[in-house]
Amino acid sequence: MSQITITAEKIHQMEVNYRRNLINDLPSFKSPHLIGTVNTKGITNLSIFNSIVHIGANPPLLGFILRPLTVERHTYENIKTCGYFTINSVTEQLMERAHACSGKYPKGVSEFIMTGIKPAYSKIQPAPYVEESPIQIALKIEEEQAIKSNDTRLIVGRIVEIRIEKEMLSPKGYIDVSKHKILTGRGLDQYFTVAKGKRLARITKDSCLLI
Amino acid sequence: MSQITITAEKIHQMEVNYRRNLINDLPSFKSPHLIGTVNTKGITNLSIFNSIVHIGANPPLLGFILRPLTVERHTYENIKTCGYFTINSVTEQLMERAHACSGKYPKGVSEFIMTGIKPAYSKIQPAPYVEESPIQIALKIEEEQAIKSNDTRLIVGRIVEIRIEKEMLSPKGYIDVSKHKILTGRGLDQYFTVAKGKRLARITKDSCLLI
Repeated sequence: MSQITITAEKIHQMEVNYRRNLINDLPSFKSPHLIGTVNTKGITNLSIFNSIVHIGANPPLLGFILRPLTVERHTYENIKTCGYFTINSVTEQLMERAHACSGKYPKGVSEFIMTGIKPAYSKIQPAPYVEESPIQIALKIEEEQAIKSNDTRLIVGRIVEIRIEKEMLSPKGYIDVSKHKILTGRGLDQYFTVAKGKRLARITKDSCLLI
Repeated sequence: MSQITITAEKIHQMEVNYRRNLINDLPSFKSPHLIGTVNTKGITNLSIFNSIVHIGANPPLLGFILRPLTVERHTYENIKTCGYFTINSVTEQLMERAHACSGKYPKGVSEFIMTGIKPAYSKIQPAPYVEESPIQIALKIEEEQAIKSNDTRLIVGRIVEIRIEKEMLSPKGYIDVSKHKILTGRGLDQYFTVAKGKRLARITKDSCLLI
């Protein structure tokens, strides 16, 4: 094996697609999810994001990174006007249709219609869920942080409802994803099922000295 | 299959460990990485984080979420005083030692020493890399955002150097992770190797109508 070193200057001089592929692939695996929203006219939107991040458990908060608002960002506008959005897990079965949500569709036509993904609704908030997703999460926008370095935004939402397949939920609160082939992802266009998983014990004052 | 609905009130009333497990497991897969830092006395620190997120390719930026500063956070203090940190991929081989970096060790003793993970150094910045990691990234702190909802912080760094196994890099800039069994994770304590992966074509004006 031989290691190569890539300097900041080399990154700066890279061809634009090469750089995009490399930098997007760097942080190994990501978490592809479908974000569902609705505008004031009732037109739904479904977008694929791979930047979902855990912010905290109490209060229950999740976040995601939005690209700069230089082009129309329906997800952002809908969240700002409606106040709510949903985050839905992507299974192997949903993969191709979920990826197709990254396309640009005619104005006023929902990705739900274009991709055939079926929405589902809840009584407590207006944003559409993805009916097929085994984990569906509804959030109320709580906070928005403008990232000055590149005009992206961190959107933070507070979980207001979780809809989950009962069989996935363990008595301790863990979610078993093995039954539904929920995907992990890489870069902008790669999707993976997972192989074997291992749960490691919490590191305590005693166990840490045994390593 | 039957779906259950968990309301915000139910989440609020949950036993604390149950809630922590559930909310941490909700966003499916995460991206475990080791973050290496050093303090002004030259004492190194290595912590495991699963909240690494892509912020942008040009300029090349990555971010991560830091928990509230109510206890000593060496990673944060070191980044603030030294200005640099490294993000290192976690392989199956590194898994147990990487997880052990979540332990609390005697003051002034580095996780590198306690876990036996070997550091490596670069000429251009002082933070330690993980020598065994096939993808090693050095970053300069660029920005810090205080998340008001729960006192966590988003730390944004600009990539100043990448060290990567040459065989992993494709002519288009993609990184092939299959050779090194880089892990994805779930919650606070689960690690997975990935199975089959699929790269999907970019959705264009024509292809989007074929879905």
